[in-house]
Amino acid sequence: MTAQVTETEAPDTVRVDLGERSYDILIGRGLLAEAGERLKALLPGSRAAIITDENLAKTHLEALQASLDEAGVKHVTFKVPAGESTKRFSMFERLCDDVLAAKLERGDAVVALGGGVVGDLAGFVAASVRRGMNFIQVPTSLLAQVDSSVGGKTGINSRHGKNLIGAFHQPRLVLADTALLDTLSPREFRAGYAEVAKYGLIDDADFFAWLEENHEGIFSGGAEREHAVATSCRAKARIVAEDEFETGARALLNLGHTFGHALEAAVDYNGERLVHGEGVAIGMRLAHDFSVSLGLCAEDDARRVEAHLQKVGLPTHMSDIPGQLPPTETLLDIIAQDKKVTKGALTFILTRGIGRSFVERNVERESVLAFLEKEMN
Amino acid sequence: MTAQVTETEAPDTVRVDLGERSYDILIGRGLLAEAGERLKALLPGSRAAIITDENLAKTHLEALQASLDEAGVKHVTFKVPAGESTKRFSMFERLCDDVLAAKLERGDAVVALGGGVVGDLAGFVAASVRRGMNFIQVPTSLLAQVDSSVGGKTGINSRHGKNLIGAFHQPRLVLADTALLDTLSPREFRAGYAEVAKYGLIDDADFFAWLEENHEGIFSGGAEREHAVATSCRAKARIVAEDEFETGARALLNLGHTFGHALEAAVDYNGERLVHGEGVAIGMRLAHDFSVSLGLCAEDDARRVEAHLQKVGLPTHMSDIPGQLPPTETLLDIIAQDKKVTKGALTFILTRGIGRSFVERNVERESVLAFLEKEMN
Ligand SMILES: NC(=O)c1ccc[n+]([C@@H]2O[C@H](COP(=O)([O-])OP(=O)(O)OC[C@H]3O[C@@H](n4cnc5c(N)ncnc54)[C@H](O)[C@@H]3O)[C@@H](O)[C@H]2O)c1
Ligand SMILES: NC(=O)c1ccc[n+]([C@@H]2O[C@H](COP(=O)([O-])OP(=O)(O)OC[C@H]3O[C@@H](n4cnc5c(N)ncnc54)[C@H](O)[C@@H]3O)[C@@H](O)[C@H]2O)c1
Ligand SMILES: [Zn+2]
Ligand SMILES: [Zn+2]
Repeated sequence: MTAQVTETEAPDTVRVDLGERSYDILIGRGLLAEAGERLKALLPGSRAAIITDENLAKTHLEALQASLDEAGVKHVTFKVPAGESTKRFSMFERLCDDVLAAKLERGDAVVALGGGVVGDLAGFVAASVRRGMNFIQVPTSLLAQVDSSVGGKTGINSRHGKNLIGAFHQPRLVLADTALLDTLSPREFRAGYAEVAKYGLIDDADFFAWLEENHEGIFSGGAEREHAVATSCRAKARIVAEDEFETGARALLNLGHTFGHALEAAVDYNGERLVHGEGVAIGMRLAHDFSVSLGLCAEDDARRVEAHLQKVGLPTHMSDIPGQLPPTETLLDIIAQDKKVTKGALTFILTRGIGRSFVERNVERESVLAFLEKEMN
Repeated sequence: MTAQVTETEAPDTVRVDLGERSYDILIGRGLLAEAGERLKALLPGSRAAIITDENLAKTHLEALQASLDEAGVKHVTFKVPAGESTKRFSMFERLCDDVLAAKLERGDAVVALGGGVVGDLAGFVAASVRRGMNFIQVPTSLLAQVDSSVGGKTGINSRHGKNLIGAFHQPRLVLADTALLDTLSPREFRAGYAEVAKYGLIDDADFFAWLEENHEGIFSGGAEREHAVATSCRAKARIVAEDEFETGARALLNLGHTFGHALEAAVDYNGERLVHGEGVAIGMRLAHDFSVSLGLCAEDDARRVEAHLQKVGLPTHMSDIPGQLPPTETLLDIIAQDKKVTKGALTFILTRGIGRSFVERNVERESVLAFLEKEMN
């Protein structure tokens, strides 16, 4: 660590424990300015390919480039359009080609400056170019800071569904500068907040209760924000360390996502109608009420979930999505094609109450159908 | 293992030792007929997506399909054109899409029936669809049986060079049926033989001497063939186990490949002019003579290498390639863009004699240039 780095306040550090592939997530205000020194310390002599989107190019790209320049880290920048539709084949191909054209080597780094879209796409590029380059995440959305930048899942969408093509490729470092979130739109901030709440709902009822009390400080940029990001990262890191390649425990992270992904697909990933975290918020409320309908979860818990999500301004019902949704049968077909299907049986994350989620691999299609039809009316 | 499997003679088995990712390479005549039972035993209940090329579709595809049918393994088949140019982005995209459209799940298997082209492409598809499906190799060329099907390197070419985009994705099983090689063209057989000879040249002088004596049996399909394939696989498996992700020892496998790849690129991967193994043959002879010119290797050893390769009908000189080659400066630029470049210095596999290869990371551009210019005259 160099002088520049130690001059600033020590950031929160969450270690993701994956043997040879272990890495740190650093969390704090102002970390972006240290990116260059930290990259240099971690990968001496390496160059960087920054991958970012148009929105970040207008807000935080210059600060990152300046930090790299100051540390003497050579870099090139590749911009992609903002939005979910960027996670597609043609962008993946173009970026692989760009990185190769810049003559970057395996020991160089791909740096993702952006939300989950940029992180997932850039991560897949880093995984694939020369069969694996160094990868550094500088997550700029709340969702990316608490979720997508942790755990090494990378990928793009296919016309058959979201995230169906990709790789497990762990970053070497994650720099979560919470000050970057100040420029995030309120809608995107809320969407990311759904994932924060998710960690409470999975297995940490105390954290959910803390969120009920302290959510305002997270939104306004108080110290609660760092606490929420660090707690979330720690929760995800623990689950990922247990199950790097998603064969078991990691499925819990999909709480709210089976319904959520189906809704995103149902609106054709049209971000005007529904962004990922909103789908997750609706999905989590649905998962709780589905669990209530199966006699697993107390009605009160479902209402607390609904109330809290609504309090921060998140949608909780399919009817909150503007425009027409497809029929329930179609939603079910989308769910069945989702990647969390094992040998034809439907897998859902159900719950026995707040903080008591579990994986259920034998959910009958009929019971989901009946539940959804009741919801639709 | 089922009755059908144990009825046939036990195949040679080479274990690739990679912890959780360990797998067996089975080598023997007639193994293709057991593919279905073996797949069922390894992955009960799984379906298979066979990826193959047009030539294999005419020769051995039916036998594979029949074996899967007999074992009750459901399957779909996707065909690609034969030849190196198939290892490209558009094919990768199409196949990912095909596998998803067939609704295959993570626990299902991609089965590559073909040479290195099909294996590399199908392997990258298996690595990427749903972030990693089961992968089974049924290598059908000599090169694929002794080299490309072992070790988990998968990928496609980019316009910046060969194999620049891909993944490390180990197969779950490799079935090397040596009888399949009976339909391989003599030219392709010879090309694969270059890789067999390579294992002797790397670190097994006895094996090279054995090849000098026994090469005819390998070509004609005697028991020498299984011995040569098994010895080669064992050699590669040992090196791969030491260095799964090619950070050190594995580089030795590139003996002859730095020059070879440059020549392949120089003829635009035109297989009429040069196939991979031919490039390797020329490259190995060049590596030995380059080592002689550096005072590392005895002239006699280089002549033995040249004589043996010529004996089996392989090219050994750039002038053996029909048509015009680019100037040496251009060849060097191609070498410098090759993926084996680390921080700008040229890496070559040099040798102190037959069976005594080593990695040299600090080869000066000028000395390669001088050597190539002498060769070109
Ligand atoms: N890899 C994983 O484990 C994982 C986990 C969860 C979600 N995801 C993926 O993440 C994606 C969603 O991520 P997201 O919500 O960050 O979407 P996003 O990347 O599209 O970002 C949302 C919007 O906010 C903008 N933005 C981001 N940071 C900003 C900032 N600091 N200031 C101003 N604008 C900013 C972006 O340009 C974009 O328009 C989805 O594709 C989802 O599949 C991946
Ligand atoms: N992944 C690795 O570790 C690795 C190692 C070495 C080479 N490779 C790759 O392997 C490729 C070369 O492999 P290849 O030489 O097998 O080429 P190939 O797959 O193109 O096969 C050569 C030709 O032989 C035909 N063929 C294959 N088996 C046959 C059979 N049994 N009967 C009749 N025809 C048959 C094919 O259709 C093709 O026309 C290159 O792309 C190279 O980069 C990869
Ligand atoms: Zn999510
Ligand atoms: Zn080779």
